[in-house]
Amino acid sequence: MITVGIVGGTGYTGVELLRLLAQHPEVRIASITSRADAGSEVAQMFPNLRGRLRLKFEDPAKANLRACDLVFFATPNGVAMAQAPALLDAGVRVIDLAADYRITNVAEWSRWYGIEHASPAWVAKAVYGLPELNRAAIRNARLVANPGCYPTAVQLGFMPLLEAGLVEPDHLVADAKSGVSGAGRKAEVPALFAEAADNFKAYAVPGHRHLPEIRQGLSQMAGNPVGLTFVPHLTPLIRGIHATLYARIKSAADFQALFEERYRNEPFVDVLPSGSHPDTRSVRAANLCRLAVHRPQGGDVLVVLSVIDNLVKGAAGQAVQNLNIMFGLPETEGLQQLAVLP
Amino acid sequence: MITVGIVGGTGYTGVELLRLLAQHPEVRIASITSRADAGSEVAQMFPNLRGRLRLKFEDPAKANLRACDLVFFATPNGVAMAQAPALLDAGVRVIDLAADYRITNVAEWSRWYGIEHASPAWVAKAVYGLPELNRAAIRNARLVANPGCYPTAVQLGFMPLLEAGLVEPDHLVADAKSGVSGAGRKAEVPALFAEAADNFKAYAVPGHRHLPEIRQGLSQMAGNPVGLTFVPHLTPLIRGIHATLYARIKSAADFQALFEERYRNEPFVDVLPSGSHPDTRSVRAANLCRLAVHRPQGGDVLVVLSVIDNLVKGAAGQAVQNLNIMFGLPETEGLQQLAVLP
Amino acid sequence: MITVGIVGGTGYTGVELLRLLAQHPEVRIASITSRADAGSEVAQMFPNLRGRLRLKFEDPAKANLRACDLVFFATPNGVAMAQAPALLDAGVRVIDLAADYRITNVAEWSRWYGIEHASPAWVAKAVYGLPELNRAAIRNARLVANPGCYPTAVQLGFMPLLEAGLVEPDHLVADAKSGVSGAGRKAEVPALFAEAADNFKAYAVPGHRHLPEIRQGLSQMAGNPVGLTFVPHLTPLIRGIHATLYARIKSAADFQALFEERYRNEPFVDVLPSGSHPDTRSVRAANLCRLAVHRPQGGDVLVVLSVIDNLVKGAAGQAVQNLNIMFGLPETEGLQQLAVLP
Amino acid sequence: MITVGIVGGTGYTGVELLRLLAQHPEVRIASITSRADAGSEVAQMFPNLRGRLRLKFEDPAKANLRACDLVFFATPNGVAMAQAPALLDAGVRVIDLAADYRITNVAEWSRWYGIEHASPAWVAKAVYGLPELNRAAIRNARLVANPGCYPTAVQLGFMPLLEAGLVEPDHLVADAKSGVSGAGRKAEVPALFAEAADNFKAYAVPGHRHLPEIRQGLSQMAGNPVGLTFVPHLTPLIRGIHATLYARIKSAADFQALFEERYRNEPFVDVLPSGSHPDTRSVRAANLCRLAVHRPQGGDVLVVLSVIDNLVKGAAGQAVQNLNIMFGLPETEGLQQLAVLP
Repeated sequence: MITVGIVGGTGYTGVELLRLLAQHPEVRIASITSRADAGSEVAQMFPNLRGRLRLKFEDPAKANLRACDLVFFATPNGVAMAQAPALLDAGVRVIDLAADYRITNVAEWSRWYGIEHASPAWVAKAVYGLPELNRAAIRNARLVANPGCYPTAVQLGFMPLLEAGLVEPDHLVADAKSGVSGAGRKAEVPALFAEAADNFKAYAVPGHRHLPEIRQGLSQMAGNPVGLTFVPHLTPLIRGIHATLYARIKSAADFQALFEERYRNEPFVDVLPSGSHPDTRSVRAANLCRLAVHRPQGGDVLVVLSVIDNLVKGAAGQAVQNLNIMFGLPETEGLQQLAVLP
Repeated sequence: MITVGIVGGTGYTGVELLRLLAQHPEVRIASITSRADAGSEVAQMFPNLRGRLRLKFEDPAKANLRACDLVFFATPNGVAMAQAPALLDAGVRVIDLAADYRITNVAEWSRWYGIEHASPAWVAKAVYGLPELNRAAIRNARLVANPGCYPTAVQLGFMPLLEAGLVEPDHLVADAKSGVSGAGRKAEVPALFAEAADNFKAYAVPGHRHLPEIRQGLSQMAGNPVGLTFVPHLTPLIRGIHATLYARIKSAADFQALFEERYRNEPFVDVLPSGSHPDTRSVRAANLCRLAVHRPQGGDVLVVLSVIDNLVKGAAGQAVQNLNIMFGLPETEGLQQLAVLP
Repeated sequence: MITVGIVGGTGYTGVELLRLLAQHPEVRIASITSRADAGSEVAQMFPNLRGRLRLKFEDPAKANLRACDLVFFATPNGVAMAQAPALLDAGVRVIDLAADYRITNVAEWSRWYGIEHASPAWVAKAVYGLPELNRAAIRNARLVANPGCYPTAVQLGFMPLLEAGLVEPDHLVADAKSGVSGAGRKAEVPALFAEAADNFKAYAVPGHRHLPEIRQGLSQMAGNPVGLTFVPHLTPLIRGIHATLYARIKSAADFQALFEERYRNEPFVDVLPSGSHPDTRSVRAANLCRLAVHRPQGGDVLVVLSVIDNLVKGAAGQAVQNLNIMFGLPETEGLQQLAVLP
Repeated sequence: MITVGIVGGTGYTGVELLRLLAQHPEVRIASITSRADAGSEVAQMFPNLRGRLRLKFEDPAKANLRACDLVFFATPNGVAMAQAPALLDAGVRVIDLAADYRITNVAEWSRWYGIEHASPAWVAKAVYGLPELNRAAIRNARLVANPGCYPTAVQLGFMPLLEAGLVEPDHLVADAKSGVSGAGRKAEVPALFAEAADNFKAYAVPGHRHLPEIRQGLSQMAGNPVGLTFVPHLTPLIRGIHATLYARIKSAADFQALFEERYRNEPFVDVLPSGSHPDTRSVRAANLCRLAVHRPQGGDVLVVLSVIDNLVKGAAGQAVQNLNIMFGLPETEGLQQLAVLP
């Protein structure tokens, strides 16, 4: 039994983590902290957990997180970099679901996030937690930087192509669409139902914080810096990301076979048959990325369609997958729930 | 007073045409036909019209469409090409909201639509009804081919760039997202609420019928054949199209000024200030295309965001705009309703 | 030309008022105030107004509202009672879209709203602005208390029955469902898309502030105090209220004829044919209440279905209707837009 | 291991049954039949099952259903009554998710369903599968009539009150709201996204087929015929039913304690703390009914709020619960998934 703690946990990533961990046979949730909600029942905030999770939010000052085998940070950016080092030094392993340890270039991180990094030494030791890219390193990692939601969908879609060097890496396009839960459980006008329902819009076209994260991953795959245009959009879904990826073909190949081969042994990446169009709902509430590869009219542009549930494979599910890898459990433990459709 | 008839009209394009025409001060709806619903009140099918439009669907065999000044075809593809010629020969002007007369190359049309063309001679005489491109020709047209919804959004977004020759025309990308009303008022499983709500998906990536129409328009603007990758998606909106357009810059320019200049006198195209992200709801129920131009990180890729209401500027509203042009009315007559937000 | 000012106006009632007034041929908007947004363009906050309404939010301290013929208060509860009296004393007429002047019993008002009333003397002079009930009094009113959204739907549904004394008044049930815009444009977690979409819930069952308002109106119609159980629900609509009303029949009658007769001359109440089920979308963006009367299985319970757009007939549209009455304009002026469907 | 077959199964009840059974540790799905889709992969129709359920639809004529321990009918009304008897005679146990065996009065059944009953003898032997009411009888039942979705929500809400005789049984009101999946996976215009989204409406007010089923159950609880007004509504949810129940109090009591006591040992009924308002999403994809009891303003009307997922506790989940009871498994086996929120 692995004893875990959760710092934060009043957001959507938090409740999803709780849903998954409460059903995980090898995990015991010892503590969940929240300054604002200390003392109140978790199930009162998240009624889906009622009757199944008897846990109260604890004051961070009082929680004994050092007794945990692993602590998840489901906090806003900037919290983990301040608080994780003490836990790490005490021998606790950490998975940060925020962005603090994702970008290896600390100066670039500061540029995009607008703050100084509080623990740059740990950035160098952190492992980027995309299992399909870094499984071996995750196994022994003390600190895992859990990938962002857009970065997960986009990287898994481009990975086989860039690793094989089959597309031109200088003008990649990632047109990505996200459900509104991606904006978090924060009271802000643009995320209101009456604003976001029956509406579709792009945002952050001049530059989104996930851009450097994606670019770093793609460049690692390509072995060289890549050029990427990344446009995120808000679409009236609760959950789900659909990334539509465009790349110019450099060398012809059997792209379908390439993808199938690359992900043959991946339990959480599903390459659909040629000609398919994945629905976001086909991964709703499940830890899965489904991919489809197209070459429209046999031309020189490849189109990859990539869908995930932003809260699962794009956040909490991937974090549990990383936990399983870090503790030598079967990678699919506690992550076998079928997608909910309709 | 202009007397109009509507053939078809039991679909979403039909009800939207009725909504606009019923509020148009210079138009009288003489007749609307529907074989299946002949004899029943229009307002029974479309309760928003109750109390304001006292009209019954007529049997097409009995309707006296030849007495009209103009007849709209709001029918499935293939109907107008069979029935419009007789009306045209009788001196009635026609606007076809379907695709029958949009593609000048009849062989290509047949390839995409899977049927022989019934009146190829009229294809040559038809005017493609995109006022921002063809206003002068529309004025005297006897037969107007009203553009498709995707083609309207995509062409208006690329037009200034291609006319000015400032982007590379061989690798354009149009990533377009449409509300579900774009699929029509047809009882089909994929358009059910429980299928399309809380879901996002691409479709027709191998080839959508709007591709040749868009390519034809863009090629005309560029003065040369263009290369285009067009990926349509279904998003859980009732109305709205958001096209995200990508083009590689050939020659630097003040793109914002270019767009503002190109559309300065267009009543139904609104170029947003630099840095904007248009919402589809900002044009909901209004005959408008709103555009925003971006050059992310000052790189060599231009991103244009283009939104329309697929049923208005993408169909019925544009048809009324064409009627206004054809009959010498002020172009904005009956089309001044403000978008409904929220 | 009537010169109007708007106090507040950054909420959904505000933008809807602007949409309607901007299209009203007899109204000129002289000023709109907002402390927080003073100096910024209205159309920047509400992009549907872009290009059609060139107006900036003004600092309330600087706005010359006394030069207006009429001032609308589209403010939170408690603002109008403090600020309206000075305007009224200066001869300006006022329509308050909030609740300050709706309840004639000031003590009861204070109990439900939790504050002392700042201008009780004006409560006595205010006219409750439900035209179908109080048209004559509205005509000369200096201060109109515009009804709440639920109260409009519920009162119009029960009015013919209570006036005629045909149902038992002591156990009325109003089961009402509202779209999320009814909660206002306030950043609060329960109104987030990811909370309110794909969810349905009752709220305020122990007691909602609209209960005393509805009870007051129904009691006036019945000529005696009524007993009412009122349960509001939140449903994933942007706009719309559907009230399902239950009453026990005291005396049999032709209820359909009763309703048709009562509302025969009402331009904004539509009694549907017997057996109908009104859709909220049949009044979307229109100033209309549609009603249907049922007597299931010929039993002794009458069921009335009442739909309105909460932002139009339930707020801004009714306010404009009141303006028309107050200034002797045709009651339908500027309010003829057809409902937007789909 | 229990071997089951499914007749039908191409609808939403079918896919939900498959989702639950595929995750049930004691069940093996031997066969699923569909005339129209025979030969095609189940996971092609329902992509959430891809990679986890390798099963093809079989031709009903060829399926060996007699080798099953239990057969589910997830078919339209009228199929089970024709086909179940042969299986029952062969010793196979049957759960019918349609309405064929729900109403004990065969003549009344025929009146509401418009057809003669094909196997009235089996109606008498069928057990109504509401475990909270009939657990003992279900244990040994050969044929279980799985309750309808509305009847489940309404009966569980009224049951404690009627059994205890604390409310007046002659004027009960059940105002119920259902998500659109309740209409099934049938291609019909009113269930299209562009019709049902952003819309709310009542339907079947003159009489819905679930009325006699509910009335039968409530009368059994009350020990006498009850009077019920039942109004169903369509709300833009994919899944979920919210029933708002009204009853006049006959004898005062501690209603909260009554409900808690009645359901103390029920694994799938959750009585919320006094003052609560259950969300439908708190039971999304889970086999649960959550209830809250209110007595507004301490008056003489009791309001009960009851929520279920119409596809789970209202259909497939309840069917699996019945299977567990029939075969002596722990009642919660395979039904422990937490609700998905957000």
